Amino acid sequence: MNAQPRRTQAERRASTRARILACTAECLLERGYAATTVSAVQERAGLARGTVQHHFPTRAELLIAATTAVVDLRLEQFRHAAELLPPGRDRLQSVVDLAWRDLNSPAFFTALDLWVAARTDADLRERLVHEERRVFTEMRGLYVEVLGEPYASDPRAQLLVEFTIDLLTGLSMTAMLTGTLGEREAVVRRWKRALAVLVGQLPSEELLDGSPLPRTTPAR
Amino acid sequence: MNAQPRRTQAERRASTRARILACTAECLLERGYAATTVSAVQERAGLARGTVQHHFPTRAELLIAATTAVVDLRLEQFRHAAELLPPGRDRLQSVVDLAWRDLNSPAFFTALDLWVAARTDADLRERLVHEERRVFTEMRGLYVEVLGEPYASDPRAQLLVEFTIDLLTGLSMTAMLTGTLGEREAVVRRWKRALAVLVGQLPSEELLDGSPLPRTTPAR
Repeated sequence: MNAQPRRTQAERRASTRARILACTAECLLERGYAATTVSAVQERAGLARGTVQHHFPTRAELLIAATTAVVDLRLEQFRHAAELLPPGRDRLQSVVDLAWRDLNSPAFFTALDLWVAARTDADLRERLVHEERRVFTEMRGLYVEVLGEPYASDPRAQLLVEFTIDLLTGLSMTAMLTGTLGEREAVVRRWKRALAVLVGQLPSEELLDGSPLPRTTPAR
Repeated sequence: MNAQPRRTQAERRASTRARILACTAECLLERGYAATTVSAVQERAGLARGTVQHHFPTRAELLIAATTAVVDLRLEQFRHAAELLPPGRDRLQSVVDLAWRDLNSPAFFTALDLWVAARTDADLRERLVHEERRVFTEMRGLYVEVLGEPYASDPRAQLLVEFTIDLLTGLSMTAMLTGTLGEREAVVRRWKRALAVLVGQLPSEELLDGSPLPRTTPAR
C-alpha cells in the first residue's frame, strides 16, 4: 500500500481554515447569526478552541471570512446551475429558474442572516457590501449571458431581470416562515406568465385565465 | 393648579410595559436582534433591571411581546397611510405606493430582524408565524379595500398585489445595504409602468421607452 504524499504545513493549514469556514456556514444556516459563536463553531468542527483562534482571533474576523466563503459557494452553485440550463428554452423563463434556484438555496438563507446582521454591524456591513457588489456584478454578468442577444443589450430585458430578482427575493423571504413550497412555486409559474405578457408574447387578458381584467383610468 | 388625576396601579403598569416594548423595538431597529438583550433595553428605558424582569422574566418573553408590538405599529401605520391616499388615483398604482411606504419603513426593518432570527428560533417562530398571519390577513383586507371593485374580486388583480408585495420586499432587502433611495424609487416607478402593461393599459412596447422588445419563442 502506497502512502499518500504527506501534506505540507500550508496545505494542512488551508484545509483546517476551510473546515472552520464550512462549519461556520453550517452553523449560520442551522442556528442563525446570534448563535454562531467561536465556541459553537469550534465544537462543530471538533477542533481545539486555540486552533480556531489561531486562524480567526475574534468572532468578527471569523464571520467576515465566512461571508466571503458563503458568497463564493453561492456563486459556484449559480455558475453550475447556469451551465445545466437546457438549451433552446425561452431565455427569460430560464432566468426565472436560475434566480429561483439561487434565492431558495441554503446558501441564500445563510447569506440572509449575515445580511440582516450587517444592517446594524458596521464592520460586517463594510465587508458584506464589498461581497454583495461582487455577487451582483458576477451574477448580472451570468444573467446577461443566459439572456443572450438580442435580449442581453436591451435595457428592458435587464429591467425584467431586476424585477425577477427582487420578486423572488421577496417571495423567498415572505414564504420563509409561513408558506409551502407548492404555494411559492405557483407564484414562480405565474411570474413566468407575467413576463410573457410584459414582453408581448401573451396578451394581458391571458395573465391568469383568459378573462379580461377590469380597466381603470390609464396610468400615464 | 389642578392636580392630574392619579393613575391607578394598572395604568402605571401598562405604561411601563409599553415603554419597555417601545425601547425594545428601538433597540432592534438601531442595534439589531443579537444586541437586543434585557440589559440593553433596561438601560435604554432608564429602568431598574428588576422592573424589566418583573414584566418579562426572560429575553425570549421580551422579544415575543415586542414582536406583537412591532406588528401592531406596522398595521397602525399601514391603516393611516391607506386613509391618506388621495382619492381618484389609479388603484393599482396606489397599492404600490402603500406597499412601498410599508416595506421601506423602520417598522418593517425591525420586523425583518425578528423574522430572520425566527428562522432558527422555534419559540420566536411560533409567535411570529401567528403575528405574520395577522399582518397578512389584515393587510390583504386593506389592499382589497384600496383596490375597490371591480378589481377587488378579480383574482388577477390580487395576483398583481402579491407580485407587488414580493417585489417591493425584495427591493427593500437588496437595497438595504447597498442601494440609494433614488435607485429604489426608480424601480418602484418602473414597476408601476409594468403593472399598467400587465393590466393592458399600456402596450408591452412601452414598458420602458417605446421601442419594441426583442421577441423569442412564445412562452406557452
